[in-house]
Amino acid sequence: MIKVGVIGVGTVGASVIKILHDNAEMISARAGTQIRVTRGVVRDLGKKRDFDIPLSDNPMDVINDPDIDIVVELMGGIEEPFKIVKAALVQGKAVVTANKAMLAYHRYELQELAGNIAFEYEASVAGGIPIINALRDGLSANHIESIKGIMNGTCNYILTKMMDEGADFEPTLKEAQELGYAEADPAFDIGGFDAAHKLLILASIAYDIDAKPEDILIEGIEHVTQDDISFAKEFGYVIKLLTIAKKTGDEVELRVHAALVKKTEMIAKIDGVMNGVSVIGDMVGETLYYGPGAGGDATASAVVANIIDIARSGKRSPMLGFQTSLEKDLKLKSKDEIISKYYLRMGVEDKPGVLSAVTKMFADHNISIETMLQRPCANGNANLLFSTHEAVEKNIQGIIKELSAASYTKSTPTMIRIEA
Amino acid sequence: MIKVGVIGVGTVGASVIKILHDNAEMISARAGTQIRVTRGVVRDLGKKRDFDIPLSDNPMDVINDPDIDIVVELMGGIEEPFKIVKAALVQGKAVVTANKAMLAYHRYELQELAGNIAFEYEASVAGGIPIINALRDGLSANHIESIKGIMNGTCNYILTKMMDEGADFEPTLKEAQELGYAEADPAFDIGGFDAAHKLLILASIAYDIDAKPEDILIEGIEHVTQDDISFAKEFGYVIKLLTIAKKTGDEVELRVHAALVKKTEMIAKIDGVMNGVSVIGDMVGETLYYGPGAGGDATASAVVANIIDIARSGKRSPMLGFQTSLEKDLKLKSKDEIISKYYLRMGVEDKPGVLSAVTKMFADHNISIETMLQRPCANGNANLLFSTHEAVEKNIQGIIKELSAASYTKSTPTMIRIEA
Repeated sequence: MIKVGVIGVGTVGASVIKILHDNAEMISARAGTQIRVTRGVVRDLGKKRDFDIPLSDNPMDVINDPDIDIVVELMGGIEEPFKIVKAALVQGKAVVTANKAMLAYHRYELQELAGNIAFEYEASVAGGIPIINALRDGLSANHIESIKGIMNGTCNYILTKMMDEGADFEPTLKEAQELGYAEADPAFDIGGFDAAHKLLILASIAYDIDAKPEDILIEGIEHVTQDDISFAKEFGYVIKLLTIAKKTGDEVELRVHAALVKKTEMIAKIDGVMNGVSVIGDMVGETLYYGPGAGGDATASAVVANIIDIARSGKRSPMLGFQTSLEKDLKLKSKDEIISKYYLRMGVEDKPGVLSAVTKMFADHNISIETMLQRPCANGNANLLFSTHEAVEKNIQGIIKELSAASYTKSTPTMIRIEA
Repeated sequence: MIKVGVIGVGTVGASVIKILHDNAEMISARAGTQIRVTRGVVRDLGKKRDFDIPLSDNPMDVINDPDIDIVVELMGGIEEPFKIVKAALVQGKAVVTANKAMLAYHRYELQELAGNIAFEYEASVAGGIPIINALRDGLSANHIESIKGIMNGTCNYILTKMMDEGADFEPTLKEAQELGYAEADPAFDIGGFDAAHKLLILASIAYDIDAKPEDILIEGIEHVTQDDISFAKEFGYVIKLLTIAKKTGDEVELRVHAALVKKTEMIAKIDGVMNGVSVIGDMVGETLYYGPGAGGDATASAVVANIIDIARSGKRSPMLGFQTSLEKDLKLKSKDEIISKYYLRMGVEDKPGVLSAVTKMFADHNISIETMLQRPCANGNANLLFSTHEAVEKNIQGIIKELSAASYTKSTPTMIRIEA
């Protein structure tokens, strides 16, 4: 029998206990052995629980228990769980975690420490979707050309609602909070940071590239308005918070931001709280993985799958997908050098010469305009909406700065990248 | 170094050789060892080839080569490859195959024979999509409630074209043949048999159920007309060839047929030659896997992934996903007892009393009508289009038989099931 200790028995942890109990017969037939949670660690021992497992409030009680085969870390945070899983590895225990923040910062150290001990983390990216499994094992024959993910359900719920119902950002966020789709403090989700943690994990598996959140471009969805959505609709786009990894030559760009995506693409069809990840491999072409990115049972489904993998055959693949390094390392592309198409929106004074001045500024920054719309505003100003051909990020940042400072500018330019 | 012998070096086999060559550095970094195809078997030794591998026309040259670690079977057929992979297993060699027909008939014997030897077959279902990987490992914590797949690109291409362009079945099939999306003899694809082979493989992994093609309901798409498509559009459906596995109680129904699917469902959004598989697990909910179901490179991507898995860690999961049997086996549900909603179309004489007679027949067969349309035909007859509430298959078959024989019937009733 495989004995599991769960450190941090919250929603997901309770689901792990439930699944291993309720689906025990199916799981033992698949795994070839019984699997049971024999210990749990919680912060508050006084709280009433729905499960009947010996509990302690000290993680070391699980780590030091010689009967425990697999330690499941679900406590959240970064440094504290890092210390705890390190201690588990020192004891030779296999580790399963759903902790994307810890992995975003410490995944390479953990790989090093784990060595031949199984260390799995399927639930850390896109919840119930077995995307680690797909990318690390299913697509291992490929050079990965790009990954485009919708990996934050809160953002996708808000943007889908804004597209479907014409509502503004703030009331939609409030509604999402009331429905439990957004946290009381939503900054981590809507600012793109949650999605960025997941992206960094996938980038390691695809490219063997070590980057931290502060190294990459991360933007959120707070600035998206109905003006942008109406532009998107007019030109056949939807707006999504995309996590993007893309390889060009020896460089990889990693970025998280709102993006205009052609509505005919599969990734554009992922709506509401659901997650989806599109991966393009040089041999397989595009494959896409869709499912619930959050929720206790869905996340626990991935945790338990890892436990079953370990019960079946111990360590399978290298933790981050690479047994040895590439001869020529891929480098992280500088944020400034990213090439994209862009959409820009700004309010200007509605008077002669303004459009000419604005368009000259585009030319001066070496940015070629693809489409342009001018719409009158209620307040007598004009709204200018541009989409560009491919341009370099630093040029776009340059023009935004200059436009913001111009005397005729009435509302700061907003930019959304276009993923073609 | 891992040495691979490929038996049957056609389109897919040549791609396997190409991928292991072109992506060698990436693959050896991921696998932790070099992998090389050192021998191939072909039917015609005289034919000019694009690759430079020692060839023979006798599979036993590969089987008996003590240097070969992994035998890749890509020759097609059923009994001949079965003999050959058995011989490979006897020699203790790991096997990778893309042969769905062989597996549809012999997968349990092969699992038995393989024992602790790795036997992998990712490419046999849905080409480049790692669906075996997802179902057997990624979703192993779940009772699988249902699988709905679009797993035949030829059918999906034809049906998508018929929906989008209003063309009839025959010219669209002809066009698909000209474009290489349909075989010269298309019966195996458009009759649903190819999809059925794949379904049987997935059903084993999900349910540990042993069924052969002749045990299950298999229908094709030949009978779908623009009348059906116009009904589908009117009521918000698309028409797809679906492979369905569904568990109710201790029974599993397995079926392949054209189906009306609500266009808002993810599976309905899979168009053209692409494949997709939606899986509902009791814990994770719905996940969906999308990608190319055919093509040399996409299929070879899956073959090579299996080779890498074996190079990394030998045998991982039980071949068909179950290490031991379930205490209480799931049984295959009788075709007659399948419950579905149905759509029926028929041409009748346009005269008083006919509609009353037809609707009375529905009542007599205990079938409740949900929607009904009557449309005049050019020839003076009337087209009747019905959709039903849930009904039992044998009752539907009963009414179709009776309607076919009725004096007022001018065109045989056509039935399409509705997947709600």
